[in-house]
Amino acid sequence: MKGPVVLLTDFGLRDHYVGVMKGVIFSRVPEAVCVDLTHEIPPQDVRAAALTLRVSYPYFPEGSVFVCVVDPGVGTERRALVIRAVGRFFVGPDNGLFTPVLSADPGAEIRAVEAERFMLPRASTTFHGRDLFAPLAAEILCGRPLSEFGPRITDPVRLEFPTPEPIPGGLRVPVLYVDRFGNLICALRREEAPEGAFRIVVEGERVPLVSTYAEVPPGTPLALWGSDGFLEIAVNRGSAAELFGKDPEILVLFS
Amino acid sequence: MKGPVVLLTDFGLRDHYVGVMKGVIFSRVPEAVCVDLTHEIPPQDVRAAALTLRVSYPYFPEGSVFVCVVDPGVGTERRALVIRAVGRFFVGPDNGLFTPVLSADPGAEIRAVEAERFMLPRASTTFHGRDLFAPLAAEILCGRPLSEFGPRITDPVRLEFPTPEPIPGGLRVPVLYVDRFGNLICALRREEAPEGAFRIVVEGERVPLVSTYAEVPPGTPLALWGSDGFLEIAVNRGSAAELFGKDPEILVLFS
Amino acid sequence: MKGPVVLLTDFGLRDHYVGVMKGVIFSRVPEAVCVDLTHEIPPQDVRAAALTLRVSYPYFPEGSVFVCVVDPGVGTERRALVIRAVGRFFVGPDNGLFTPVLSADPGAEIRAVEAERFMLPRASTTFHGRDLFAPLAAEILCGRPLSEFGPRITDPVRLEFPTPEPIPGGLRVPVLYVDRFGNLICALRREEAPEGAFRIVVEGERVPLVSTYAEVPPGTPLALWGSDGFLEIAVNRGSAAELFGKDPEILVLFS
Repeated sequence: MKGPVVLLTDFGLRDHYVGVMKGVIFSRVPEAVCVDLTHEIPPQDVRAAALTLRVSYPYFPEGSVFVCVVDPGVGTERRALVIRAVGRFFVGPDNGLFTPVLSADPGAEIRAVEAERFMLPRASTTFHGRDLFAPLAAEILCGRPLSEFGPRITDPVRLEFPTPEPIPGGLRVPVLYVDRFGNLICALRREEAPEGAFRIVVEGERVPLVSTYAEVPPGTPLALWGSDGFLEIAVNRGSAAELFGKDPEILVLFS
Repeated sequence: MKGPVVLLTDFGLRDHYVGVMKGVIFSRVPEAVCVDLTHEIPPQDVRAAALTLRVSYPYFPEGSVFVCVVDPGVGTERRALVIRAVGRFFVGPDNGLFTPVLSADPGAEIRAVEAERFMLPRASTTFHGRDLFAPLAAEILCGRPLSEFGPRITDPVRLEFPTPEPIPGGLRVPVLYVDRFGNLICALRREEAPEGAFRIVVEGERVPLVSTYAEVPPGTPLALWGSDGFLEIAVNRGSAAELFGKDPEILVLFS
Repeated sequence: MKGPVVLLTDFGLRDHYVGVMKGVIFSRVPEAVCVDLTHEIPPQDVRAAALTLRVSYPYFPEGSVFVCVVDPGVGTERRALVIRAVGRFFVGPDNGLFTPVLSADPGAEIRAVEAERFMLPRASTTFHGRDLFAPLAAEILCGRPLSEFGPRITDPVRLEFPTPEPIPGGLRVPVLYVDRFGNLICALRREEAPEGAFRIVVEGERVPLVSTYAEVPPGTPLALWGSDGFLEIAVNRGSAAELFGKDPEILVLFS
């Protein structure tokens, strides 16, 4: 059997929405294993979901079935997709969420689901996580070939991600997201960094590029290459988001 | 074996309370499967827990064992119950939490547990989720017949739920709960709606009844029949709770 | 096989950090069972994590593998540990987090891990939960003998915990932590309580020592021996933290 089922949504954990999605999966596949990637994507923030998927999927085994539901267009004509890419399966709305895995695998198999065939009876127009995407994940777990879900497509929605902006003498780097610790994860990957020496300046203040948080005194800002390979602005035992705000000016200046 | 074990509490996820309940279950049934329905029921809000159970249980497989612990009377003489109803099992305090499944199944088997026989050694008076209800769930998982838990009863506590109030020319509809997205879930089920045409007026503003959020422009309020069959007041890509407050006047007026 | 894997971190559930730790474990041990103890330890609060571990581990089965990651020193020379104690396994940084299980088991086997041998390829310097501790847990699950992880040590970091302070006629008792309900869990265990009669005074107000919350009227403060054996200041159907603040003066006065 394939698996585990990996759930990524903006449903939060306050309500019963995530629980009933799992109920639907267990109703059809009692031996399923469900893993929560996160359910705290900001409501309807497809880009944040795509970024989370990008940095997370490589750590899950081949054969994993990702159910990704951040779906502001639920109930409209937006397509539902099942995808085989990077050795894994993906289920969710066609709104750009899967951009990172499609970019990583040019041979991805993408199919537009004939949704009405797989919907729960008496399906809602507003909760396809429960009524469509959970059943689709169960079908994949049970071994249904992708070809049976619907026609192959080549034009899935793709998102643009923020990128560094060239400025005289360097780059202006936008923040991608802010994590629980107040670390600012920036849109600059290690392999995109300028060759040779450079300085990092946040809101006019130079911050040292170090290897780990504890290299500077507590309360001191720093920059490092974070655990997902992006430039990260942090404060040792503190919060960069509190010190600098959530979207400060971050410059990488050639020395 | 029965299962999965479905956990519904007001314990939140900040503390170790939910974790140790699962520890107790795994200590007795290593192959158990635990699913979180939600742990973010507002503290001691038995009615909110009952509503969550009502809209969720049908999506879990027959044989599921629901452990429901919202228990302001813990440690008092309030009874502990094990119930077989709607093809599933339920464990928790006798405070009305199970009203929806008892209403749905007139043939429910309800037993008042001889609690001292099933309590953990050195049980507390304040955490029966860990010390009584988790062990009871483990016993049910292992196949103990319900008749062994205690005598059958016919007078469980039952809750009243808010209902629409008739007014001249229509209904005033109370809010049942507010979800993570700020959607207002109202105490009017689709099958209870007036026949013929009607208008929906929230705080004096008419809102259109549509099929899905995206039918109105972003930021615009709307009404629809939500995923659990209740009237729902929402804002496309926004929050109705922010726009109207959490308990606005909602009128359904016959046209 | 050993298990379950019990996860205790300060990573929160907003980000993908906990999810990818589980991904790493499932990548190596597809049949693993993961249980969340809590991920809402206040960021970098090693003492809070140690207290949580202290009151929780006895409820998990022997053979459980605890992965505990509250790790302000990540990336520095702080050691990584694998421990066998109290019939269970523990993996995490050497910063005092494991003090309670080491105190409970003088025969504990403690090993300093040769980290570079077990790290994921291209490991980060800031996320050892994913890159080191999750792989270590997987190795233990698969049966690798503890002796293969690294040399035995006898000098792990140990923490001091707050204790009652003797004052004329009694004790001043510090708060250990505040739970979701606003209950104040205090640093006085039942077996340490004064023999004979005593009074409990919070911010100058005497509160009765009762057996359960419901013994006093709603809104009334009370004291009781909580579910983990500590003195607890609570308010029936309310919040002691709201009434008294999170760190009030709590006195136990001999009568």
